[in-house]
Amino acid sequence: MTHQQHGFLYPRTPLGRAALIPSPPWQYSGDLLTVEYRTDPSHVESLLPEPLSLAEDDPGAVALIWADWQSCSSSREELLDPIRAQYKEAFVVVRCSYEGQTFSRCVYIWVDKDFAIGRGLHQGYPKKLGSMWQTRPHPFGQAAPQIAPGGVFGATLAAGDRRLADVVLTLTGESDTNGFVNGHPMAHHRIYPGIESGAPDAYVELISSGASSFEGGQAWAGDVDLRLYDSPTEELAQLEVEEVIGGYYRQIGVVWDGGTSLAHLTPSS
Amino acid sequence: MTHQQHGFLYPRTPLGRAALIPSPPWQYSGDLLTVEYRTDPSHVESLLPEPLSLAEDDPGAVALIWADWQSCSSSREELLDPIRAQYKEAFVVVRCSYEGQTFSRCVYIWVDKDFAIGRGLHQGYPKKLGSMWQTRPHPFGQAAPQIAPGGVFGATLAAGDRRLADVVLTLTGESDTNGFVNGHPMAHHRIYPGIESGAPDAYVELISSGASSFEGGQAWAGDVDLRLYDSPTEELAQLEVEEVIGGYYRQIGVVWDGGTSLAHLTPSS
Amino acid sequence: MTHQQHGFLYPRTPLGRAALIPSPPWQYSGDLLTVEYRTDPSHVESLLPEPLSLAEDDPGAVALIWADWQSCSSSREELLDPIRAQYKEAFVVVRCSYEGQTFSRCVYIWVDKDFAIGRGLHQGYPKKLGSMWQTRPHPFGQAAPQIAPGGVFGATLAAGDRRLADVVLTLTGESDTNGFVNGHPMAHHRIYPGIESGAPDAYVELISSGASSFEGGQAWAGDVDLRLYDSPTEELAQLEVEEVIGGYYRQIGVVWDGGTSLAHLTPSS
Amino acid sequence: MTHQQHGFLYPRTPLGRAALIPSPPWQYSGDLLTVEYRTDPSHVESLLPEPLSLAEDDPGAVALIWADWQSCSSSREELLDPIRAQYKEAFVVVRCSYEGQTFSRCVYIWVDKDFAIGRGLHQGYPKKLGSMWQTRPHPFGQAAPQIAPGGVFGATLAAGDRRLADVVLTLTGESDTNGFVNGHPMAHHRIYPGIESGAPDAYVELISSGASSFEGGQAWAGDVDLRLYDSPTEELAQLEVEEVIGGYYRQIGVVWDGGTSLAHLTPSS
Repeated sequence: MTHQQHGFLYPRTPLGRAALIPSPPWQYSGDLLTVEYRTDPSHVESLLPEPLSLAEDDPGAVALIWADWQSCSSSREELLDPIRAQYKEAFVVVRCSYEGQTFSRCVYIWVDKDFAIGRGLHQGYPKKLGSMWQTRPHPFGQAAPQIAPGGVFGATLAAGDRRLADVVLTLTGESDTNGFVNGHPMAHHRIYPGIESGAPDAYVELISSGASSFEGGQAWAGDVDLRLYDSPTEELAQLEVEEVIGGYYRQIGVVWDGGTSLAHLTPSS
Repeated sequence: MTHQQHGFLYPRTPLGRAALIPSPPWQYSGDLLTVEYRTDPSHVESLLPEPLSLAEDDPGAVALIWADWQSCSSSREELLDPIRAQYKEAFVVVRCSYEGQTFSRCVYIWVDKDFAIGRGLHQGYPKKLGSMWQTRPHPFGQAAPQIAPGGVFGATLAAGDRRLADVVLTLTGESDTNGFVNGHPMAHHRIYPGIESGAPDAYVELISSGASSFEGGQAWAGDVDLRLYDSPTEELAQLEVEEVIGGYYRQIGVVWDGGTSLAHLTPSS
Repeated sequence: MTHQQHGFLYPRTPLGRAALIPSPPWQYSGDLLTVEYRTDPSHVESLLPEPLSLAEDDPGAVALIWADWQSCSSSREELLDPIRAQYKEAFVVVRCSYEGQTFSRCVYIWVDKDFAIGRGLHQGYPKKLGSMWQTRPHPFGQAAPQIAPGGVFGATLAAGDRRLADVVLTLTGESDTNGFVNGHPMAHHRIYPGIESGAPDAYVELISSGASSFEGGQAWAGDVDLRLYDSPTEELAQLEVEEVIGGYYRQIGVVWDGGTSLAHLTPSS
Repeated sequence: MTHQQHGFLYPRTPLGRAALIPSPPWQYSGDLLTVEYRTDPSHVESLLPEPLSLAEDDPGAVALIWADWQSCSSSREELLDPIRAQYKEAFVVVRCSYEGQTFSRCVYIWVDKDFAIGRGLHQGYPKKLGSMWQTRPHPFGQAAPQIAPGGVFGATLAAGDRRLADVVLTLTGESDTNGFVNGHPMAHHRIYPGIESGAPDAYVELISSGASSFEGGQAWAGDVDLRLYDSPTEELAQLEVEEVIGGYYRQIGVVWDGGTSLAHLTPSS
């Protein structure tokens, strides 16, 4: 007798309601605060495993992005129990080249909910837990900026009880772009180390994905005051800031509904 | 030699920057989700210490309010390190009468930051820590309601790892009011138990306060689906829901800058 | 030019210190509070995917285990920054049969640190975040039980701001066993859903593992008062308690150093 | 008709079970990791409001203490729902002189539970929320030190997503003392700022308290590696370490049952 298991990732159960994450599509509404800067391209290169290589154009460009999200499945039921819908994240994106095409690639990412970790597992985002805070705009300015010239937004990132990064972004005007580093399809690895002690990876897949639909408001540019802090458990500060490219703020709505397998790279054991 | 201490509440220190809370005025921008209902007036009366008595009009009316706040001092510096500015709360308000005047009174309140506890100490709000979540509106509806007819907002409250209340509010249309229970000046007690074992209170003061300035957007009314859950460490569920009065959603900006001492009630020892 | 990546799971980086988890062996010292009970075997069976089947002996037996851990890598460096070492968990174990051998299998598990989630990914534990609390013994009894007859220990589990389970265990005497349900090698699945929308699983592996070394103190048995609570996001309460088998308390030290691949079950696409 | 309110601090309610804290006596079992050092006495003096003055003997001595507590009321019911019993704290103690007697005084303290904040309000401890971690001893050494020569214990303190202090203590041998800075009765202020904007304090009381009963195990001394980190919201790092006096580890059990009012210092308004 076969028992049907339900659940997109895990646990797989009789009813499927205990699953860490629902099946895609996954829907998102949120605010992005983006800072782009240049580091020495060798720092980016050292984060790219084979068969990825440096992007040809502006290879040392880095985006550090804070996002304040509300998210849900197609059922939208998570929105009514919003501990299941809201999360914050900060992530670091570089670009790379694979078979002649330029991809974006998230090299570090911190979130504050387990369902976000679960979605990241599927999408190849290397998610850890962190503490992220991001100034919110509000129609009433007693304790909030407006998304307008002069609006000042702060964002901070910590993990392991240590501050890792903080930024102050002062909006100066409308922008044609929300940055370029995170603008390509993502190229991410999905891996399982071999379960035997010392064994090579049991599974390595290079996958690509991006939004299946996207809406965005006006992007705004601003002046950036960025600081990275070292930590014994992180390597973000190794991506030293040589030159700030720009800072951006944008409200968006996104749907994610799967991607494409680029290559199976499991080593032969 | 006298050493000047700085700090509004505590700790009082040489520089004053370690103080739990800055000096008023305190500024707030946020979203309120309010549910009003009637309980048996005896439940309200049992929460009113002397010299307070039941309000004459609609004495069993209760407001359960969720608020998603950003807040700051006059310096606005907290907005740039938003772990110091953002907090969520849920609170329960009833009305009472003191010397012939009607006051609002917060009988239960949960917040998620220590600075909010500190401000509550000063203002007489009986703040405990809790976990509050409230659906956020967003311009892009992939994972968010709009503040408009049909917009659906959920809100939940938990403390001590137990769910205490949740509500779903479905907006139906504009409203002339955001409710009436929380609309009066607050009448709150500030107390210090006597430090000696078994001693009477060392300090009891009845104070009143309200917003020193207020801005508000359009209020919206909606249909309410409210549930209260019992807990061995709470008494919220004792305020049983007999009849829902209404549900409301409103974005506001507020400044608080002190109040008035109504009475010193310290028992003679 | 090849860039060597370091890191057992992810992210893989130039220095390897940003990795979510270190390479095994992983070392643990902690206290286990175990409750075993019988549910209808059909509830257990419904949690076993092919090719697993019900254990022949006592097939409805369930263990609900709380663990208060300190853990580290071989370097022991995590012990000096104990936010990296301490975590709590609660997990549910059943037994199953695979190719004629009896295995234990964790069907639900909640932890409170990301490194614990990461280790679980490797080991096939379906970890989600939760809030677990477990009474601690202490040499001085002002606010602590002793591990001795009459010692009373409570344990609670919550997730998503809802209480899921709590137990009170009153020790009655020494025990020859710490329970039997979690006593076999674990049989766990490691899965990756296919990245394409609606695709079958890209990777399914059945693996087995257990402690590579184990030390344990005297096990104690006790009387059990157990309650499970329903939640819209969990299915633990479906494993209804028909009969309590026993309750146990034991302090242990464990090393985990990999396991064995039992079967590759990836469906052909 | 008078309605009896129950609850030691707040909220005061019909049943009293919603109160933030129970009535004393309060009972504690826990482990203390203490570091004592000398700073410039002027740093200590600047933290002492009138009528307190510097202690005559070793006036620049500071104790930085981590404590991993389980606590309860006389009913001991909190021990069975241990989210209500367990908390961690780190606190800074100096000494002072009042009317010719030497007192200890806590100048900074961080805890991780609201009931601990509530008890601190009563006792005059200036409690804020923080994140504290402290290595635990365990009978099985796979991932734990022993309380014995060579045992290595780490402790960390963070608040506002910033690391404030960390220490590594390597035990060297038994000690006749667990330090001396925290060994006197505490002299603490209890204050309420005036509710009117800009008003002087409405209530200022100098109180003294200490344990009503105490048990302690063998104290251990050790080598200390201590670091303090600056933060824009703290002043701990201003108490610069000039010379480490010693480091200590001890398990204790304590009961607290009220104190003594030393002086009423409310300014005349």
